[in-house]
Formats: sequence, C-alpha cells, structure tokens
Amino acid sequence: MTDDKGRNAKRVSDFVSEERLWRFHMEMAKIGATPKGGNNRQALSPEDAEARTLFVKWAKERKFEVSMDEIGNVFVRRPGTDPKAPPVLSGSHLDTQPTGGRFDGIYGCLGALEVLHAVDDSGIQTKRSIEACVWTNEEGTRFSPGCLGSDAFAHPKNLRKFLAIKDKDGVTVGDALADVKKRMPSVDSRPLGFPLHAFVEAHIEQGPILEAQKKTIGVVTGIQGARRYIVTVEGEDAHSGTTPRSRRKDSFFAAVDMVNALKPIFTENDKDDILRFTIGRFEVYPGSLYVVPGRVIFGIDFRHPSLDTLDRLGAQIESVCRKHQGGCTVKVEEIVRVTPTPFTGLIPETVDKATKELGYPYMHILSGAGHDSQNIAPLCPTGMIFVPCEGGRSHNEIENATPGDLAAGARVLAETMVEIANR
Amino acid sequence: MTDDKGRNAKRVSDFVSEERLWRFHMEMAKIGATPKGGNNRQALSPEDAEARTLFVKWAKERKFEVSMDEIGNVFVRRPGTDPKAPPVLSGSHLDTQPTGGRFDGIYGCLGALEVLHAVDDSGIQTKRSIEACVWTNEEGTRFSPGCLGSDAFAHPKNLRKFLAIKDKDGVTVGDALADVKKRMPSVDSRPLGFPLHAFVEAHIEQGPILEAQKKTIGVVTGIQGARRYIVTVEGEDAHSGTTPRSRRKDSFFAAVDMVNALKPIFTENDKDDILRFTIGRFEVYPGSLYVVPGRVIFGIDFRHPSLDTLDRLGAQIESVCRKHQGGCTVKVEEIVRVTPTPFTGLIPETVDKATKELGYPYMHILSGAGHDSQNIAPLCPTGMIFVPCEGGRSHNEIENATPGDLAAGARVLAETMVEIANR
Repeated sequence: MTDDKGRNAKRVSDFVSEERLWRFHMEMAKIGATPKGGNNRQALSPEDAEARTLFVKWAKERKFEVSMDEIGNVFVRRPGTDPKAPPVLSGSHLDTQPTGGRFDGIYGCLGALEVLHAVDDSGIQTKRSIEACVWTNEEGTRFSPGCLGSDAFAHPKNLRKFLAIKDKDGVTVGDALADVKKRMPSVDSRPLGFPLHAFVEAHIEQGPILEAQKKTIGVVTGIQGARRYIVTVEGEDAHSGTTPRSRRKDSFFAAVDMVNALKPIFTENDKDDILRFTIGRFEVYPGSLYVVPGRVIFGIDFRHPSLDTLDRLGAQIESVCRKHQGGCTVKVEEIVRVTPTPFTGLIPETVDKATKELGYPYMHILSGAGHDSQNIAPLCPTGMIFVPCEGGRSHNEIENATPGDLAAGARVLAETMVEIANR
Repeated sequence: MTDDKGRNAKRVSDFVSEERLWRFHMEMAKIGATPKGGNNRQALSPEDAEARTLFVKWAKERKFEVSMDEIGNVFVRRPGTDPKAPPVLSGSHLDTQPTGGRFDGIYGCLGALEVLHAVDDSGIQTKRSIEACVWTNEEGTRFSPGCLGSDAFAHPKNLRKFLAIKDKDGVTVGDALADVKKRMPSVDSRPLGFPLHAFVEAHIEQGPILEAQKKTIGVVTGIQGARRYIVTVEGEDAHSGTTPRSRRKDSFFAAVDMVNALKPIFTENDKDDILRFTIGRFEVYPGSLYVVPGRVIFGIDFRHPSLDTLDRLGAQIESVCRKHQGGCTVKVEEIVRVTPTPFTGLIPETVDKATKELGYPYMHILSGAGHDSQNIAPLCPTGMIFVPCEGGRSHNEIENATPGDLAAGARVLAETMVEIANR
C-alpha cells in the first residue's frame, strides 16, 4: 500500500489528501461566492443545483455510484464486498445562509467525499459500502424549518408536507426541487429512509471552544436542544405626521416592549453563558419612514442542553408577549422544537479511538448548533467530528478553517468509517 | 349662468359637481388597488404612470393644455385672458404609500381638476390662467426623500442630484421617470420653476381634529417642521446556536437599546401629545432566525411645530445612539430637515373669506403632515385647504372621506382660485 506521495502507508488515513480536500472546498466556494469572501447558496436555488452538480461530477469521475431521493438528498456510494449490508454513511449539507461561509456543512460533504477517494486510493475493500451524502436544506433560511432533507429521510411521511412549504416569494420546495433536478445530471432514484448501519458527520465547530483550547478534534457528545417561535404583532398603519401618540396602535413599539420583557428572562440566571437567545428576524411593515407601522413579525431562536430549561423558558414566551401587546394584538407560534440529542456508544467511541491513534489533540464537546445528525440519530448509531473554525465565527462570510485541521478531521473520519464498515 | 343641474347659478362653486369629483376618485382608486380597499401606487411605478395617464386623459377631454417638466410634474391649464400672467396653481400628488389610501394627495389633484371643470362649465373667463398639477413623488417611500417634484420645481439646481436617487432595487429616479414617460401620452415640455402667482393645495386632514370638532373646512395656518434620520448599526453576523452571548456583536439588541434610550426623550415632557415620534423603518440583516444579526438600519421621523424643539431634540440623537452602541458601531445621518412653514396673507385670507361666504363650519388648523406646499411657499403666496378624513386615519388602506366634504373643499378651492385669478 502506498499513499498519494508514493510513500509506504499502513492506514487509510494516510491516503487522505490535504491538497485535494482544500481544492474541493475552494472550487465549491466559487459557486454563489459573495464579495466579502463567503457564500450565498440558499437551499434549492440555481447555485445549490450548481454545487450539487459539481459534487456529482467529482463522484462520477471516480466511478462512484450516485443516487438521489425524493427530497433531493444526494448519495455517493463506494460499494462494499457485501452490497446488501446497510452502508456506513457520512455527510452534511452544501446550502448556506444568505451571508454564509465556505465550510459550514460543505466540509461534512467534501470530507466524506475525500474519505471515499482515500479509501479508493488505498485499494481497501470494505465489507459494508461507505457513502457520502448531501442533505437538502439544512440551513432553513429560504425554506423553514431547516434540516428538511434529513427529517424527510427519517420520517418519509413528512415528505408531502415538506414539498408544500413555500419561500417568501411563494415558491414551494416541490417546485424548487423540480428546477434543481432539471439543472443537474440525471442520477438513480433512492428511496427515503433506506437502512443505515451508522452515520457520522464531520463539521466545523462553529464556535470558539476548540480554538481557545488548542484542540484539533472535537469528539461530539451531543447537540443542545432548541425552540423557535414566530411572533406576529398587529397594530394599525397610520400617518406618522398627523396621528397623535394617544391614538396610535404602533406595532413596532409594542414589539420592542415584548423584546425588552423577554430578554432578561433569557439572559439572567445564565452566568455561565450557556443559553443562546437570538432575535435574528424582525420585520416591520409597511416599512416606511412616514407610516406608523401596523405589523411586526419577529422570530425567536433559543437553545440549551437541558430539556427542562427549554420547557420552562419556552412556556413563558406567549404570556410575556401578550402582557406587553398594548393596543395591538399578538400571535405566538412555535415553529420548531428540537429536544437535546446525546451521542453515545459506537460512533463517539470509534472517533475517540481513531483520534488517539492518530495523535491529535482532542476534547469532548457539546454542539451548540443543530445538525442533520439530530434527525439520523434515532435511526442508527450516530455521531459527529468537529474541527476548529477561526475565531469561532460561522454563519458569516468571513468564516474560516485551516487546510490542516480539515484534513485531520477527514483522517479521523476515514479511520472511523473503515473501522465500522469492516467490523 | 346655469349649473350642472340646469339651475340658476351665481358663483363658480355652484358648478362644482360632487358626483363628478367622486367618480374621479373612484376611477383613480382602481389603479394599484389593494385587497383591503386602499392603493399601492408608488412614485414612478407603472401604476403611477397609469394614474397620470388617466389624469391627462380627463384634462384632454376638456381641451385643457397639458405639460410636464423635467422631474415629471404634470400641469393642466385653463388659459386666462392674460396668458402671460403667472398662473394660479393648485394640486398635490397621485403617488401613494405601499399601503396607502384613495384620498391622500389624490384629492388635491382631482379637486383642482374639478375646479378647472367647474370654471369651464360656468363659462367664467379668468384673467390669469388657472392650473391643476400633479407633483412627482410626494410620499418618498420608493425614492427618499419625499416632495421631490415640488422640491425640484422650487430648486431646479437639485434636478441632477434627484435624478440619481435610487430605490432599494437600484433603479434611479431618472430611469423610472423615463419608463413613466414611455407609458404616458406625449405632452408639451415645461421648464422647472416657471413663475407662479399663487399656490393652494387641497388635502384631507390626515388627522382626527376636524372630525372631532365637527368642522367641514380647515383653513391651514402652517405645517409643522420635521427631522428625519437614518441610523445604521453594524455588529457581526454569527451563528445563533454556537456563539456565546459574551462574544456576540448583536446589532439588533444594540439598536433596541438605542430605541429604548431615544423613546423617553421624545415622549416625556409632551403632555399635550404634540410631538410625533415614529420609527417606521427597522431592517434587520441578514434576517435569518439562525444568524445573530450583523446589521440594523432604522429610520427616525419626528415632527413638531416649534423650530426650537426640533433643534433641541434632534441634537441628542447621535450621542444617545453612540452611548448605547455596545460592541457595535453606529452611524447617524440626518436625511431630511424641514423647518416649520407658516401660511399667512393672501391664501389663508381668501380661503377664510370663501369658506365664510359658503357657510361651511370651519376652523384654523396646523398641518401635522408635510406637503408639497412647503416647497412652493417660498416662491409665491401659498396655503392649504383641509377636509376631514374618517377617524383621522391616513397612510392606511382604509383611509376614507365623504363625497360631500370633498365637494365642499373643492367649492372653497374654486372660489379661492377664481378670486385670486381675477384680482
């Protein structure tokens, strides 16, 4: 066995190519590139179709088998000696936030593709097939909620409902998916929810901990839970120059009153800075300087590792908003509720072992972000591998990671997948 | 002299037709009609072009002379016996807010057009020409600032700057105006800033005072002043699930802190509810539930009849915002500064006299809203006539006024214009 530089090599991880993996990332980052060096490649957009097409092209160049299911999840397969045995799967997503970076999700897809290349280069025949995948719409910005592809894979009964979800222009997931398929090369169909032996997802941490602790690998022990709400405040449009304060039904100031009342609930009693409370969407209508605004729609995202905390704080939102509605009315809808997901057993143990054998500095870490792994965890042994990202910045165009760290994570992933595929 | 019902008539106001004036409004309201009964006919849109085309059609049916200047202001002229004498002009605007009503501005154009019809029906020959006009982009929502057409008329040197103003899609006033001209019948050109003898603008009050006082006519004594600001708060986009509170530069919460600090400055010490303080624009970017927002842009509009109050409060905005910027940065730009405009002399005196002669209940009133009259006031004797609007509601799709009140205002306008044109 020789590696990509012709040296003697003993393990599959020796065949992981830092250069190839970095090139994959830089080529992918050209699609939907933004002026500030990030990516805007929203789910099921023409840019998403172009990214998938490039992923499929790389797979086909190596004669890997490519398939796609009914929600648009893409699978790339290197068959094992027992093709009927459920595969060992790894992957993430290629869609980004509107001001997203070059690594969030992308690394999980390209890292898995790199593992398939490395295994192929090594000549190793695994017993089980190993596969790399791209889950559809993880980010959830264009079509809400996120992690749609992995959710449909885990719950095929949700497919019809998901296909009817509309973006803000009224385009459905179904319509956008049909357009993506038209733009991609034709590939085999795959059923939703086919049996999996194990799933492991590589990802940048998207937080500052690994960098601060000077660790190369994070063995992920679980994902915190999250609850998300949409709050709609209805007042009355009125002329900003003539309408006395006493006669206004100003939805903006009512919404600000709600925010002022909510904020301390989510920030006090959190001295360790564990709870994540974000209002990232806040839309004021009609949005004119000259009109007292008659409607505000805002979104709340909060996350915590404890189910109890999620339950207790979430239960207060509606009553707090109602208490501060003033002359307006308010509607509070919970749109997402994700219980915390622990990762235990096969995957974290195998990742742990591979990391130790390869000698990387590592730590156990909890994921602050949600991931497709949450949806797959109930189906089969599941886990994640984190690598550092610069300054902990993610969901940001300047998101960055080093070629060396990405390759280290891919080496751990390669060892983990081959180990499990041959067990 | 006989009126439109064949009765003996002695004055031009007897020829004002309530039915025709109402029909003008209802026909106009079909253009850009919204489901809730209002209008969305933003400046220099295809709908605005259609509205202007209808206005010109009505004028040409009566053989009035139609012309347009370089910013798109439209003039309809019934010539006087001394065609070289500067005309008596009346008019307002046909553009609306995105969720605007059927009367704000429209009444001033159609009321003036009705006066030309009434004078024509009466057979009266005025010495000076009387003219009805449509000022371009009064509302200022699509292209900011508002009152652009009357401003360019009063200050032709501003034309080039105004033509370069862009809407949020990057379309310039110049481009949009070229498109409007393509969609309209060709009319004669008129220079900006031609000499005027007097200007009077009829308008719905857009406030609750006339209705509450049971008055049909408001003789407007002036317009309160206004200052408008755009505040840009820059933080840093970050992942909402992974970024600890202590590491965030959250532009949303910084902007809310600024709003919380500004609000009492503009509401306390205003027991008589005179000051108008509005934040009608508040945009959060990138606007995703999953991203700590890195940028907020919000707009402040405040108005008061006292120049001293405008100066004193406006001077505090920048320092208050800066004090509450937290980890973000803030930029405060004043985009509009309108000093209070008193109306005295010829116009309010003539309106006063006509109203008394016609026997309508009336009162003197200050305008809460800004109007094109503010720009014309420095050029010639200027004033306004108000009629009530239902519930004081304006800049709202349910804005309403009665056919009788609109006709009453047009009768006062007709007497005023003929009186001044013959003096």
